[in-house]
Amino acid sequence: MRITQHEIEIRVRYPEADPGGYLHHANYFIYFEMGRTELLRANGRSYKEDMESAGRFIVVVRTECRFHRPARYDDLLRLRTVVARVRAARVEHEYSLFRGDELLAEAKVVLCCVDKEGQPQRLPDWMLDEPA
Amino acid sequence: MRITQHEIEIRVRYPEADPGGYLHHANYFIYFEMGRTELLRANGRSYKEDMESAGRFIVVVRTECRFHRPARYDDLLRLRTVVARVRAARVEHEYSLFRGDELLAEAKVVLCCVDKEGQPQRLPDWMLDEPA
Amino acid sequence: MRITQHEIEIRVRYPEADPGGYLHHANYFIYFEMGRTELLRANGRSYKEDMESAGRFIVVVRTECRFHRPARYDDLLRLRTVVARVRAARVEHEYSLFRGDELLAEAKVVLCCVDKEGQPQRLPDWMLDEPA
Amino acid sequence: MRITQHEIEIRVRYPEADPGGYLHHANYFIYFEMGRTELLRANGRSYKEDMESAGRFIVVVRTECRFHRPARYDDLLRLRTVVARVRAARVEHEYSLFRGDELLAEAKVVLCCVDKEGQPQRLPDWMLDEPA
Repeated sequence: MRITQHEIEIRVRYPEADPGGYLHHANYFIYFEMGRTELLRANGRSYKEDMESAGRFIVVVRTECRFHRPARYDDLLRLRTVVARVRAARVEHEYSLFRGDELLAEAKVVLCCVDKEGQPQRLPDWMLDEPA
Repeated sequence: MRITQHEIEIRVRYPEADPGGYLHHANYFIYFEMGRTELLRANGRSYKEDMESAGRFIVVVRTECRFHRPARYDDLLRLRTVVARVRAARVEHEYSLFRGDELLAEAKVVLCCVDKEGQPQRLPDWMLDEPA
Repeated sequence: MRITQHEIEIRVRYPEADPGGYLHHANYFIYFEMGRTELLRANGRSYKEDMESAGRFIVVVRTECRFHRPARYDDLLRLRTVVARVRAARVEHEYSLFRGDELLAEAKVVLCCVDKEGQPQRLPDWMLDEPA
Repeated sequence: MRITQHEIEIRVRYPEADPGGYLHHANYFIYFEMGRTELLRANGRSYKEDMESAGRFIVVVRTECRFHRPARYDDLLRLRTVVARVRAARVEHEYSLFRGDELLAEAKVVLCCVDKEGQPQRLPDWMLDEPA
């Protein structure tokens, strides 16, 4: 991938916030997934077309997340997604979620490329030719 | 189907309630789907095994829902699912959601049986042999 | 409200689609809610600031939806929201969801304005001064 | 808390699985939250009554999760929740998710007790009197 960093804006939806009024922590992982999907799209690639249609699937193997400050309903957030490491069948992204300049959460998600049987497969070449 | 009415209990999960403190209205439809899945299971059938694995899919074609009183986080609800009508490719269920004796919501959901291409298909025989 | 019709674009997220590959029907109602929130914002109003902070809440009392064709993961959809009727404590919106020129779903959602105790309350004036 | 380990069963719902057919990774965190809620209930406590109504809220400050094998739609899973550490304002649980004897995922979630302003607060006594 040529572009290894990307930012998107996300507006917190009403049902994504919980009775405490905060964006529920499970939903951060949906945002992170949107971040890497849009990073792929910024590279002219589509997860649906270039991966799934080729019999390659991305599964999440590990996540780590630190929640510094809560996001709330209707907040307009900014998510930065960075490709941190790419190796054979694995790719690792780092995520930073902001409201304005305020850092709300930081995360790392490790993905593995598998086939329909769930066996690890080398990532497609266009994902591996990351600039050193 | 021999059993045409079934009840299940559902505990409202934290992220299913919204900042207003109420079970978000979209989630009622997830509960209704659970109701018809368990009605199927009470008949010794599984949507996954008996439908999807046979290349038959159920799509929702119409919903109507009236919300009488709100449900809240941690409420223990009781959902009654009734087969209201079965015809060729279509089945219609009616749902009543209770907290104790209090009726919270009533709904009707019309389903259509389709193949992988989305073409309507006759429901499997075991679904059509509904007692008159 | 001066503006009584509004359109937004929505990209179908991965977890919003189900194992059948289709946008799950419950999620349409989340999209419709986004549609009316953005219609409000187009009128210079915010549900969070102008309603909730004033002790007024919107609850859904009735929904009707017809699903004509399925949406799929990664589809870019266009949702049109129209104020259909405003009366005292109730407002009714109509929704049309499109992929390109293809109509995927049509819905009607009836909302009621309530206070913290759930008692119906007249809608704020700025919501009632709808052009005849 | 007297009981520091608890197990619950969870049936994977249709919309919790994604187009790949797998339980979406974000939903694991909803399951873990159910696990700690039911552990609390097994101790005769309710998050809603004993915490929120007392102006104490639990926020998630850190999560780590390893996904070993995928869960699928309609799988009946077993979640084990263990209190791993309790200190002043923080409590840490460990989670193991099984399908039969197969370990699907392991996680750690660190919670912090806060007041309405988000300031850390000592956990209620009944949470701290954990057996050494």
